[in-house]
Amino acid sequence: MYIFTEEELRQHISLNHKALSVVEDGFTSLAEKRAVMPPIMRVDVHDHNGEVDVKTAYIKGKDKFAIKVSSGFFNNYQLGLPSGSGLMMLVSATTGVPEALLLDNGYLTDVRTAAAGAIASKYLAKKDIDTVGVIGCGSQGRYQVKALKLVRNFKQVLVYGRSQDRVQAYVKEMTKELGVEVLAAGSAKEAVIQSDLVITTTPASEPVIKAEWLHPGIHITAMGSDAEHKQELEAEVLAKADVLVCDTVAQCERMGELHHAVSQGVISQTKDIPEVGELTSKQAAGRQNDEQITVCDLTGTGVQDTAIALFAFQEMVNRGLGLKIENKTKGGVIV
Amino acid sequence: MYIFTEEELRQHISLNHKALSVVEDGFTSLAEKRAVMPPIMRVDVHDHNGEVDVKTAYIKGKDKFAIKVSSGFFNNYQLGLPSGSGLMMLVSATTGVPEALLLDNGYLTDVRTAAAGAIASKYLAKKDIDTVGVIGCGSQGRYQVKALKLVRNFKQVLVYGRSQDRVQAYVKEMTKELGVEVLAAGSAKEAVIQSDLVITTTPASEPVIKAEWLHPGIHITAMGSDAEHKQELEAEVLAKADVLVCDTVAQCERMGELHHAVSQGVISQTKDIPEVGELTSKQAAGRQNDEQITVCDLTGTGVQDTAIALFAFQEMVNRGLGLKIENKTKGGVIV
Repeated sequence: MYIFTEEELRQHISLNHKALSVVEDGFTSLAEKRAVMPPIMRVDVHDHNGEVDVKTAYIKGKDKFAIKVSSGFFNNYQLGLPSGSGLMMLVSATTGVPEALLLDNGYLTDVRTAAAGAIASKYLAKKDIDTVGVIGCGSQGRYQVKALKLVRNFKQVLVYGRSQDRVQAYVKEMTKELGVEVLAAGSAKEAVIQSDLVITTTPASEPVIKAEWLHPGIHITAMGSDAEHKQELEAEVLAKADVLVCDTVAQCERMGELHHAVSQGVISQTKDIPEVGELTSKQAAGRQNDEQITVCDLTGTGVQDTAIALFAFQEMVNRGLGLKIENKTKGGVIV
Repeated sequence: MYIFTEEELRQHISLNHKALSVVEDGFTSLAEKRAVMPPIMRVDVHDHNGEVDVKTAYIKGKDKFAIKVSSGFFNNYQLGLPSGSGLMMLVSATTGVPEALLLDNGYLTDVRTAAAGAIASKYLAKKDIDTVGVIGCGSQGRYQVKALKLVRNFKQVLVYGRSQDRVQAYVKEMTKELGVEVLAAGSAKEAVIQSDLVITTTPASEPVIKAEWLHPGIHITAMGSDAEHKQELEAEVLAKADVLVCDTVAQCERMGELHHAVSQGVISQTKDIPEVGELTSKQAAGRQNDEQITVCDLTGTGVQDTAIALFAFQEMVNRGLGLKIENKTKGGVIV
């Protein structure tokens, strides 16, 4: 049994082309029906304003698969702790024995979530873009743009957030990090109107983007909504899209932007909505021309977790890292 | 983050009155609606004849709750490995941070499953019993009888299994362990007819107990079925019971004995079936007289896992045991 700490994982696992590629393969396995992915398990801990999700997927042919536990406890700031934490474990696909624990406190989730955003943009955004709008200036507001840089060149980032301090910190940090101009937008509207590509990264429960702001050629990735009550896009945004894609239709219907579009009657048919894996496996077309409006609804999937955990495990083991614990079993020998 | 190995857990955590009591409290919390318990998550790994289940439950007022990963890979014997393995983790109920990993390879599941059987017998079996029938001579065939000894005195055990070698090993081992007479039964029928209390502990997918064998006063605990295709009791056994109890009706309807009784139309109404927690919390009566036939259908619940994991954690920490790993997080300090 290998154990890796957050510190080690942050040091050695980067958001790079290889990480993007393994997550892309994960989506492809889903579309090609090579993955077994049960619905997300969720435990609500209302008395402490928290929730814990468990995600998993077995990808056929892989020798291990991940089970991920991720928590969001929204009073943690009172204790000086981040709201998100959790870990991934890798279980042998041939024996069922747990083989590794990645004590990442959500870091690998940040990486695989940003990778999914970049993959969506790779297939759905215009080839040439100038300005990227970012709504929300937390960690995903950062990771998403870093990942995007792997698939698109852009000249400018317009960031919008409700806290001026956090926006200013973002501008300062990301100007340095990205090597492009990063500016504060005066409003979400301004960010949307002036951008070729917009990423929403908020925990909003009221829409932050209105359909009337959309313009030809825009692409929007909404990655914030992962629970029934969350919503970043007006339902009409989805209806107005020429191409609407979900990471998985089943999950987005349950807890993504699609959930609200369906419940408000703005979208009635969901069975023909393509999934990200259909883009990556070329079963569905992405953007066809520079005038289309494209929208991608991301809720986060178990195949991404298995893909990134396998990638991280291999990278760490190749470097000879990790703590190895011997855990003898009564019936045989499990190491 | 604390880590405990199977060896340490086996050494220090016993199937005793205290373990029974914490599991009983777990069931009570469920009946009193103080537990949040989502449906079981299941990953089927058909290409390797395996399955992984995830169970969890948050019990209000407890400072941690368990998420348990348990696997059954039925080709493992070819590798000299037990089919079952897995681990439990404890997550803080106030911050969502993982606090302990119990690398028990299924040991704590054995303990809490046997505890549930003993609790069922405590409320459902006659006070005075002579003979206990055990169908199946694997590890639960042993643990169940050891747990039963905490709640009932009995003079004899009749064990039935398909492998004569395994039956003989059981007889030898359990005679020593229990201090009562342990005999091999010639058939499942013989074991049922001659016993006051019968425990089925098999992975059978065809009934091993027929309704026509039942006699007044008998109690049966069926703990083997935990998947749609498994069945130990003829559907009519459930219909013939004067008192039928489930660990949870929702789970038993999906994958316990109840599942078959309902699908065969032998039982039509399930909403009035009491749960084990209603017995332990005195919301429902158990056995009323020595003539009743009682049956308990157990599928295994997340509250049992949280109860036993919290118990084990406390026992281990009290003894100063476990490996402590420091796992710094970027946003705060998680130890």
